[in-house]
Amino acid sequence: MADLLTADAVREELSRLPDWSGDPTGIGRTAQLGSFPAAIAVVDRVATVAEELDHHPDIDIRWRTLTFRCVTHSAGGVTHRDIELAGRIDDIVRSAA
Amino acid sequence: MADLLTADAVREELSRLPDWSGDPTGIGRTAQLGSFPAAIAVVDRVATVAEELDHHPDIDIRWRTLTFRCVTHSAGGVTHRDIELAGRIDDIVRSAA
Repeated sequence: MADLLTADAVREELSRLPDWSGDPTGIGRTAQLGSFPAAIAVVDRVATVAEELDHHPDIDIRWRTLTFRCVTHSAGGVTHRDIELAGRIDDIVRSAA
Repeated sequence: MADLLTADAVREELSRLPDWSGDPTGIGRTAQLGSFPAAIAVVDRVATVAEELDHHPDIDIRWRTLTFRCVTHSAGGVTHRDIELAGRIDDIVRSAA
């Protein structure tokens, strides 16, 4: 079981993830892609990583704008698994932009 | 510009779409697939249809549960384009289940 991060730890991690915001109950970011197909391609790549990590973000698709939210439901809050997933999502969004 | 459906017309259309609910402000359904990859495969197929119809549903991904919401934003409510998209989404979900 992954350890819950404290509020201070979440704040510190978020300082290294400038596109993310949140607190110990969950962290999230949005990303606007150039088109709807480009957004779906990002969803597909994030899905592959999510399966690899066995950790699945909530994803909301609003045409070409995506919202991701990460929380470790089994732990009841944000853990290092969420921080790792957030970083991987950033890599995918960055390479798609 | 697609015509807005009246409340009565939406109700009648929804009587033929038993998995959908809503009103003239929007219609929605959820679908639980067998796995996260199966859910993403449905998203991909819905995305292809959405591009073909140039009409894009809101999609929320919560692990293997999907929520779709259809409304014609340019018309300010539900039109026949939403009913058509809802039917196409049903076909995809049915063939994936």
